[in-house]
Amino acid sequence: MAPRKKQAIFEATLDLVAAKGYDGLTIEGVADRSGVNKTTIYRWWPSKAALLGAALVEAELLEFDPPDTGSLRGDLTAMVDAIAKLLDDPPTREVAVAALGAAVRHPELDTRRFFADRFAREQEIFQRAVRRGELDPATDPMLLVDLLAGAVWIRVIFRDLPLTENFARDAVGAVLDGVGCSSAS
Amino acid sequence: MAPRKKQAIFEATLDLVAAKGYDGLTIEGVADRSGVNKTTIYRWWPSKAALLGAALVEAELLEFDPPDTGSLRGDLTAMVDAIAKLLDDPPTREVAVAALGAAVRHPELDTRRFFADRFAREQEIFQRAVRRGELDPATDPMLLVDLLAGAVWIRVIFRDLPLTENFARDAVGAVLDGVGCSSAS
Repeated sequence: MAPRKKQAIFEATLDLVAAKGYDGLTIEGVADRSGVNKTTIYRWWPSKAALLGAALVEAELLEFDPPDTGSLRGDLTAMVDAIAKLLDDPPTREVAVAALGAAVRHPELDTRRFFADRFAREQEIFQRAVRRGELDPATDPMLLVDLLAGAVWIRVIFRDLPLTENFARDAVGAVLDGVGCSSAS
Repeated sequence: MAPRKKQAIFEATLDLVAAKGYDGLTIEGVADRSGVNKTTIYRWWPSKAALLGAALVEAELLEFDPPDTGSLRGDLTAMVDAIAKLLDDPPTREVAVAALGAAVRHPELDTRRFFADRFAREQEIFQRAVRRGELDPATDPMLLVDLLAGAVWIRVIFRDLPLTENFARDAVGAVLDGVGCSSAS
């Protein structure tokens, strides 16, 4: 399938899920909105769960290029800012929230694939940091990602609170420098 | 209302939401299951969103006593273990996932109240740590909670991965000690 056509389908999929939630998402609706024949869409993605799963990973709207600022601190701060933007701004906030809400009720919509794909791309941040001597090679990169990404999810989605201007800097500072007083740690 | 009767209602509410999801939760179903008259339940909680919101905060099943181990490190590790247990084990995992999935689709189910209530109780962990000189009073306690609780949510729910034995210790170690190499931080 031509990349442009595929992106039109993904865009329609994410638009629909943001506007109507997972229950309102149908292959028919995506066909109408994207102008691509329904049977063509079904040939590529046998269900709406498969289609949304693919859109989450491949749509331009959710594109993610790992930052390369020259330092681990800069890269992680940029990563937190990118996640914050994703979860704070429409329409990606609605997409994330609808996809998450759907994923917990419909295991066939496999959000693990989305998180695994992101993590595979984030790896280079940590590989560069180890090469630069900024990170102990024994550190588990997934733990750092989960601490930082998780903090944004809790603050922005679960607590529904605005992020302070220094949120990314403070969160990254906590995991890189620690907040314990050295005398007691 | 007698505390015992109230707990029977909350228990029925959480049982139902774990088994059938938010869509399957009805005041009628709660009345049947708890043996409490429907009109009595409606008098206290005008909607199923109000009832589930109250159950999340007040039910014995989700009870949370802030740990008091004698150190900030011990308290935070116990807190992470408690959240991990909540999200890893049935039926609380199903309750949390159903409530979260519902909250994002039904804003009237106000999960902010649950998170605010937990945070109010967690405060004493940080107040004690400041008094003991283990934590800089300028540190934002909510940031620490969100980093740690968020990491559990991402790992256990979004990635659907098992927690390693040392997860709590490592996560707390990261935020208290930092993972950056001191030469570069």
